[in-house]
Amino acid sequence: MFRKVAVIGPGLIGASMGMALRKRGLADSVVGIGRRQQSLDKALAVGAIDKATLGAAEGVQEADLVVLATPIGAFAELMAQIAPVIPPEAILTDVASSKVRVVETISQALHARPDVAYIPTHPMAGGEQSGPLAASANLFEGSVCIITPLTNTFPESKGLITRMWRALGARVVSMTPQAHDRTVARISHMPHLAAAAMLGVLDDTDAGLCGKGLLDTTRVASGSPELWLDICKTNREQIGAALADYIRLLQAMADALADGNLGRLHTVLDSAKEKRDRLLEMRRAASPADEGRNH
Amino acid sequence: MFRKVAVIGPGLIGASMGMALRKRGLADSVVGIGRRQQSLDKALAVGAIDKATLGAAEGVQEADLVVLATPIGAFAELMAQIAPVIPPEAILTDVASSKVRVVETISQALHARPDVAYIPTHPMAGGEQSGPLAASANLFEGSVCIITPLTNTFPESKGLITRMWRALGARVVSMTPQAHDRTVARISHMPHLAAAAMLGVLDDTDAGLCGKGLLDTTRVASGSPELWLDICKTNREQIGAALADYIRLLQAMADALADGNLGRLHTVLDSAKEKRDRLLEMRRAASPADEGRNH
Repeated sequence: MFRKVAVIGPGLIGASMGMALRKRGLADSVVGIGRRQQSLDKALAVGAIDKATLGAAEGVQEADLVVLATPIGAFAELMAQIAPVIPPEAILTDVASSKVRVVETISQALHARPDVAYIPTHPMAGGEQSGPLAASANLFEGSVCIITPLTNTFPESKGLITRMWRALGARVVSMTPQAHDRTVARISHMPHLAAAAMLGVLDDTDAGLCGKGLLDTTRVASGSPELWLDICKTNREQIGAALADYIRLLQAMADALADGNLGRLHTVLDSAKEKRDRLLEMRRAASPADEGRNH
Repeated sequence: MFRKVAVIGPGLIGASMGMALRKRGLADSVVGIGRRQQSLDKALAVGAIDKATLGAAEGVQEADLVVLATPIGAFAELMAQIAPVIPPEAILTDVASSKVRVVETISQALHARPDVAYIPTHPMAGGEQSGPLAASANLFEGSVCIITPLTNTFPESKGLITRMWRALGARVVSMTPQAHDRTVARISHMPHLAAAAMLGVLDDTDAGLCGKGLLDTTRVASGSPELWLDICKTNREQIGAALADYIRLLQAMADALADGNLGRLHTVLDSAKEKRDRLLEMRRAASPADEGRNH
């Protein structure tokens, strides 16, 4: 599928992509590009990449696929380095968790490179761990990958990236960057902030007694604060809107509780149970083989 | 440890207790008391009980341990039936998730029975499943069981119940009913309502894309609405206070996001990650053998 893939930032997602592409024979070579040799050595050790370099401009040479997998905050500077030197006809993709601002940043950096196909993607996999040591060739099995192709995207490049994610085990869904940011704010970004807030109301006595329920509820809060701050920065409006809706519903539940309006609470609990049970069904239907790994 | 244990309401918790006591040889006989023969038949089939009856007064005869394991809403009526006929010297325990009102209800019903020792407990195990078919003899391994003994509790009875829960694999923590309700509102009841509210802000597009993160975050919302409504009813004030604190912190985060005050957000995310990582450590230290089952 690819001769040479350059993964810039082989952390959990980047290293898992490298590992998955290599194991499936979809890339002849995967070069890892990073800021710290130590990190690159780990990615080499786990077999995520077969070459490593600290120089982005050097690393992307001869690549037919370049994957931006660093935190979003590093994109602008990296694009300044690689935009002039990405090989003609190469595909550039990113795996960032927010899309509208990211697509703007990268598209602007590529304004002089109409010969490079940029396909924004968001593989929704990974959880709260980070770094190449947590990488797995199966990370994307049973996951969803959202792609937000630009209107001027080459159809063949879009097709290739879609086939790549499918080959890595993901269900590929295409939408606009705006729709992506709205949906992901609700299913991922806002819930992350909510998990952090939930931990914020616990004192040490509470914490000492918490069980599996709360550990699951707050699992996402063990993710990297820096990574999440980047996401908050680049999807502020949609996260703000999702938070506002969430706070409004919580306040309605608090009011119902205070007023003894248990009918109202019952309705919310019923429809939540029904919705979650349906989500679980949908997920099981979409990826039956995934059960053992995820539950 | 016991000759005859009567489990009133052999659902997930009650049936798991029966199964665990029988498997460990801690009870010569376990009788299940229920409202529906169908449910009792399931409890018999899975080996949670060895006898079954629809009559509470009949079932508790000759029992030296009576376990109230129905939804809280049924306690008052059941106590009216069994209070006159519980054998002298028997221990009565309940496994309800809220304690102040439950302890009041049961203590009042027992006012004429100073010869019955009442030990309120809350085994924090089980998750979102329910019913005897979900029961397991290992359900309490690695869990926490809170006991909220009355000031006039017989010490030997308290000691026996403590040893029983330890034998079933639980870490036993003793506190007042008031402290219990405050803590559990924060680590369990409020997070349950929060999970329901989080599902409430999703539309169908959002829902179709949700991954493991959100499924974990909202797992508890698959619990029985009726059970949770009972809990809300009997722990209204503390759940209300926890919700108010949670909403306040969420609003502060929303404000920080809107103002671009990322330093404030960073602080919340950092301290949440630190707190959750510590919870995980504490849980691992408390029950290392539990890892395989819970992760």
